[in-house]
Amino acid sequence: MDKSAVLADWISPSTNPVTSIEHFAPSNIALCKYWGKRNKQLNLPMNASLSVSLGHLGTHTRIVPIDYCADEVWLNGEQLLPSAPFCQRVSSFLDLFRQPGSCYFRVTTRNSIPTAAGLASSASGFAALSKAVNDSFELNLTDEQLSVIARLGSGSACRSIFNGFVEWQMGQRADGLDSHGVSVEQCWPGLCVGLVKVDASAKSIDSRSGMQRTVDTAHLYQSWPIQAAHDLVKLKQAIAEQDFTLLGQTAEHNALSMHATMIASWPPLVYWQPESLATMQRIWKLRQEGLNCYFTMDAGPNLKLLFLNDELEALMRYFPEMEVIQPFGNGR
Amino acid sequence: MDKSAVLADWISPSTNPVTSIEHFAPSNIALCKYWGKRNKQLNLPMNASLSVSLGHLGTHTRIVPIDYCADEVWLNGEQLLPSAPFCQRVSSFLDLFRQPGSCYFRVTTRNSIPTAAGLASSASGFAALSKAVNDSFELNLTDEQLSVIARLGSGSACRSIFNGFVEWQMGQRADGLDSHGVSVEQCWPGLCVGLVKVDASAKSIDSRSGMQRTVDTAHLYQSWPIQAAHDLVKLKQAIAEQDFTLLGQTAEHNALSMHATMIASWPPLVYWQPESLATMQRIWKLRQEGLNCYFTMDAGPNLKLLFLNDELEALMRYFPEMEVIQPFGNGR
Repeated sequence: MDKSAVLADWISPSTNPVTSIEHFAPSNIALCKYWGKRNKQLNLPMNASLSVSLGHLGTHTRIVPIDYCADEVWLNGEQLLPSAPFCQRVSSFLDLFRQPGSCYFRVTTRNSIPTAAGLASSASGFAALSKAVNDSFELNLTDEQLSVIARLGSGSACRSIFNGFVEWQMGQRADGLDSHGVSVEQCWPGLCVGLVKVDASAKSIDSRSGMQRTVDTAHLYQSWPIQAAHDLVKLKQAIAEQDFTLLGQTAEHNALSMHATMIASWPPLVYWQPESLATMQRIWKLRQEGLNCYFTMDAGPNLKLLFLNDELEALMRYFPEMEVIQPFGNGR
Repeated sequence: MDKSAVLADWISPSTNPVTSIEHFAPSNIALCKYWGKRNKQLNLPMNASLSVSLGHLGTHTRIVPIDYCADEVWLNGEQLLPSAPFCQRVSSFLDLFRQPGSCYFRVTTRNSIPTAAGLASSASGFAALSKAVNDSFELNLTDEQLSVIARLGSGSACRSIFNGFVEWQMGQRADGLDSHGVSVEQCWPGLCVGLVKVDASAKSIDSRSGMQRTVDTAHLYQSWPIQAAHDLVKLKQAIAEQDFTLLGQTAEHNALSMHATMIASWPPLVYWQPESLATMQRIWKLRQEGLNCYFTMDAGPNLKLLFLNDELEALMRYFPEMEVIQPFGNGR
């Protein structure tokens, strides 16, 4: 089943774009990770996941119909070559909404994520693009439908359609129409995410290939979907009860378990750098000393710290270059 | 079922010691790791394992009956306090062979393992002690029986009863009498084990507690026994066919998967130091450059390199402080 077949009931690709439009979508940090696909074509996950969106940090995407024979993609002020992988992903994504050869766009995408933060931008990028396409083609899709569409561009983009806490329900259907983000309504003023950048001296493997290698070669991966399901329940409980320790412990355990499945792959997939490990050890030491601080990590060497506003001042002394986001405001 | 009950058919604890005796047993490095117990009292493993003994590196243990009301334990030239954990483990072990209060020993144990090598000595220590007790009490036990007995002192000691490659068959019986080492008859001249010491700045948790925490808290551990069973088959094939790449890949994958189960525990159990990770990255880089070299790691920060004699000179340039053991001679 290919992507356009899946969307046949929602979208008729004969529609012409009406208008130029710009949209924003936030980055998101998963507290229960998405790792492994049950369908590679449609980005359908092996497990449900849960994230928090990062407020004003994310991607602004503008699309403008152009009178030309190909799409133009601009990323942070620079035009990409048509052969660039990101350019091709964007064009294939736009093909879902237009008849072959009918129209082309200038897509201008600008990340408001500080480069130093080490955050991936494909999630917020495809979420913002989905919103822009929805308006440009006057599709009038719901947020959950847009979440399905964003997922076809990049799996975790389905969570960036929403603000606050978001659950990506894995769904059951073969066409994936029930696999999308759902907003978790609770707020948590005072919750902080601190981005700690670790220099990656070695170029790491992209997360798409990484999760494939894990599914194919790590025996331990077989236990991952069950753990993720348990962690999701705990995280929802932590959010409902505003139990920060439960939230932090579950998120850190989940992230380390995901990294464990990578480490158990062959050839070994270790996204950590020595400095990542040194930073983890510092956090464990601070925690022993009474600071209530946890971390999560994605497919890269950087750490994302989780803590409450009360600890902000203390933590800034240990991580002076940390970028701090308060997804729900400062709670004061 | 307690330890003495298990041994009731083999040992009658009324026997008095006859003679002073000294024995040696080698250290061993597991290529398929022992991680997790199905019975804590009897050190019965969740999975079979396979090791190579390290020739002359190991423990010399002398036992001498003494006319005193307690055992004396000397370790590397220093007498231990009766309250020292190792002293108590040795005394409890000796209790399996004597009637309460009937006789005491001076146990002098001396490790020929260079301190810098970072090898555990309880495996070779309890293997040497088992051999000494066998002679002192004139028990006339077979090597496989001694292996069962050594296992009661320290799990992996059951492999140190033998030289060369050793399989620890996990067994099925509740009393564990079928859970012991078995010699794998093949030799492999030219096989090298290189000990690379990494300084542990943080004191790590002992492996007994570590494996318990893993079994209790790591979801991913559930897939470990199956992986270990597969790895054992591959290692025996590699040994039978002298296929070094298969041996090295399987051993490294097995060790990293064991560490993955630790990393997926809660609280997180990371025996690696930043320098351990830097050393792994060096080995992966050397391998990309064509050097056929792998590593294994136990519950600590040190690496044990696996390679063939042909690569010895090249590797010594990268790891000048490495201690090299050739368990079967140099193959020239």
